[in-house]
Amino acid sequence: MTGEPDTHSTRFEPPRGMRDFYPGEMEKRNAIFDAWIGAARQFGFAQYDACVVESLDLLRRKGGEEIVEQIYTFTDKSGRELALRPEMTPSLARMIAARQGALAFPLKWFAIPQCFRYERMSRGRKREHFQWNLDIVGEPSVAAEAEVLACAFRALDLMGLAPDVRVHYSSRALLSDLMLKLGIPRQEHAAAFLALDKRGKVDDAEISSLLLAGGMDAARAGAVFDILKIATLDDAVRLLGERTPSAQALESLSSLLDAHGLAGRARFDIGVVRGLGYYTGIVFEAFDLDRKFRAIFGGGRYDRLLQDVGGSAMTAVGLGFGDVVVGELLEDKGRLSAISRRADLAVGYMEDAQQEAAIRVASAFRRSGQCVDMSVRSEKAKAFFGRVGKGGARQAVYIGPDDVAKGEIRLKNLDDRSEHIRKMDALPG
Amino acid sequence: MTGEPDTHSTRFEPPRGMRDFYPGEMEKRNAIFDAWIGAARQFGFAQYDACVVESLDLLRRKGGEEIVEQIYTFTDKSGRELALRPEMTPSLARMIAARQGALAFPLKWFAIPQCFRYERMSRGRKREHFQWNLDIVGEPSVAAEAEVLACAFRALDLMGLAPDVRVHYSSRALLSDLMLKLGIPRQEHAAAFLALDKRGKVDDAEISSLLLAGGMDAARAGAVFDILKIATLDDAVRLLGERTPSAQALESLSSLLDAHGLAGRARFDIGVVRGLGYYTGIVFEAFDLDRKFRAIFGGGRYDRLLQDVGGSAMTAVGLGFGDVVVGELLEDKGRLSAISRRADLAVGYMEDAQQEAAIRVASAFRRSGQCVDMSVRSEKAKAFFGRVGKGGARQAVYIGPDDVAKGEIRLKNLDDRSEHIRKMDALPG
Repeated sequence: MTGEPDTHSTRFEPPRGMRDFYPGEMEKRNAIFDAWIGAARQFGFAQYDACVVESLDLLRRKGGEEIVEQIYTFTDKSGRELALRPEMTPSLARMIAARQGALAFPLKWFAIPQCFRYERMSRGRKREHFQWNLDIVGEPSVAAEAEVLACAFRALDLMGLAPDVRVHYSSRALLSDLMLKLGIPRQEHAAAFLALDKRGKVDDAEISSLLLAGGMDAARAGAVFDILKIATLDDAVRLLGERTPSAQALESLSSLLDAHGLAGRARFDIGVVRGLGYYTGIVFEAFDLDRKFRAIFGGGRYDRLLQDVGGSAMTAVGLGFGDVVVGELLEDKGRLSAISRRADLAVGYMEDAQQEAAIRVASAFRRSGQCVDMSVRSEKAKAFFGRVGKGGARQAVYIGPDDVAKGEIRLKNLDDRSEHIRKMDALPG
Repeated sequence: MTGEPDTHSTRFEPPRGMRDFYPGEMEKRNAIFDAWIGAARQFGFAQYDACVVESLDLLRRKGGEEIVEQIYTFTDKSGRELALRPEMTPSLARMIAARQGALAFPLKWFAIPQCFRYERMSRGRKREHFQWNLDIVGEPSVAAEAEVLACAFRALDLMGLAPDVRVHYSSRALLSDLMLKLGIPRQEHAAAFLALDKRGKVDDAEISSLLLAGGMDAARAGAVFDILKIATLDDAVRLLGERTPSAQALESLSSLLDAHGLAGRARFDIGVVRGLGYYTGIVFEAFDLDRKFRAIFGGGRYDRLLQDVGGSAMTAVGLGFGDVVVGELLEDKGRLSAISRRADLAVGYMEDAQQEAAIRVASAFRRSGQCVDMSVRSEKAKAFFGRVGKGGARQAVYIGPDDVAKGEIRLKNLDDRSEHIRKMDALPG
């Protein structure tokens, strides 16, 4: 309160917008990561990674939208412009382009990068998050979209959340077909996508202004809003007057999602556009059924990114699934309370004279693969059992001088209080 | 070769000194991480994490040695000075200081941070690495040192490397006692530690110059080299004329390491000093027996860091174990060749008409927890079995029109070529 720049309260905080993970928070983060990794492996995605530091040049090559203004950039001592990556996809495109002749396609890769964006700190939004990325590169059919969506739902399943989430999908190709049909020329589509992505964040009047600012006349801007009134894919087909390839792809996606067991978990929603500039085909976003939270995951097909970073043209589908929103949903549904790691065995001892015996006992159980919480100092029995009895371990051994004299340990089951005597020289491990 | 700044060869590379992890390299990294995490859990260490971005102020508060010059620093848009952390310990100290009144001590925590140093690029040294950190905070006895060392050896064990590594330990407290005994005043000890840590990197004449530059006279600098000739702890005690507490602690460490089953894996070595300024007591470094590589892990006791970052004084022991050197040792010993992830099942199909059936089969096995590599496009049987037969999966199902007509799949074991018929409507999951 003295206005000093370095008061006690801020002295120990992480940098603004960044998170610390104390062990309790780390267990929750691990629960989310475990679900992501488990689902990716069930679906045969191979893990990769790239450094959180990326060259600014690569991010510029991808270029396009507002994200570039939000990048943390810095210069190394040789004058190289570097950045903390705001997303993983440009790094993925770079890695694939580097070995495009040697890799076997279609390839299915996943990663869990930490990504940084310098954002205004609204409603607790952070400046970093972890984002599970699933990508299938080199497969033009919607089997790729269906596969990444089914894998994301398997991760939700592993978190106990699958019934609480629905994915909304549309297609920029379909939107383009509809806009062309209503007389909006192709060169105005990109600006329309970026404006439409702001729906829900700003009001329709503002979107109208954005469309007009993008060079559209009032009649065409009105037509865009007519498109947004389309409720079903059949309505879209009626307006188009034909089942365009873009409409057929969405029908096919619906069938494949049914085959994946996701009937009822996915719906066509003309309003889904996505903010990133590089999407070219089907796009999707998943929300909790109550729409209390921001998008849980999102993604779509991008056909030009490999080319934009300097590789050969190749189609791809990507999905990004952040740790923050799903963490909020897990908290909201009370699904995180049960997570806590229990040791298999706690080992304590009364006096320093029993310390080496305690170490030998702990070592034996650890060698057999058990997780053993061993005291690093002597303590009274009451203190030891008080500490480990509160769900910290399944079993406990407390060693006193009599135990060492007899060469025995008493293995106490902390759930049912039963006790077993074991010879110290006949332990596992 | 044209001298263009952005040639094809560098266009797809990661920033200088940073690593990409393609799936093959990622499997190796995961094998190392799995051993670290497995050992930490067996030993009851709780996982934590902090953001790779840290405030430069915190790193300056810790202060001291050359590391500060090697930090990647940058400024955010509000003028805050930030840095990519060069090591985790200052962040750990900050997090503990923030909750020093609420946490239960002694605490045992671990993390696997990525750390950055702007170094000259000598012999393939990287500018980033991952470093397993084990810390025990609040325990003054050498039980803490013994516990972190035993845990590090368990990780080596899990990698199949324990017989190939030996830890060398000494004590800055013992070195101080010896220097005082030989007439070197305490204010010259810190400079002596930093000079001695350069042994092996520069020749003894240069270390002599460093000692003299630090204010020591020639006789005292000579005495420092006499100390380095001490071969055993008994020699040190003889020179001291008494079993000082620093000597007793080293004797006790030796006994506790024996109890941990590490007899023969650890030895007293007066030459171990460590480079970081904050160590105050026992210090250690582990090397491969052939001394082909740099230190595999290192660490020691630091008693002043909590205080230096603004918390209350508290003793701590830390160990850092990087992924690069142990990776080189694993390669050298041929211990990484066996690592490869095999899917439980590969599913392929002949024609698009069987795609949905294939998805249903894959979904069923995935729901039962199996890892299933499903083709996202139709392919000829020969192409499918050629692709998955090379160790990519344990079992395979290839679906043609006849299978769908009969409602059956043929589950082929790729190891022994046996085949089992299963009804499609009676699959697991």
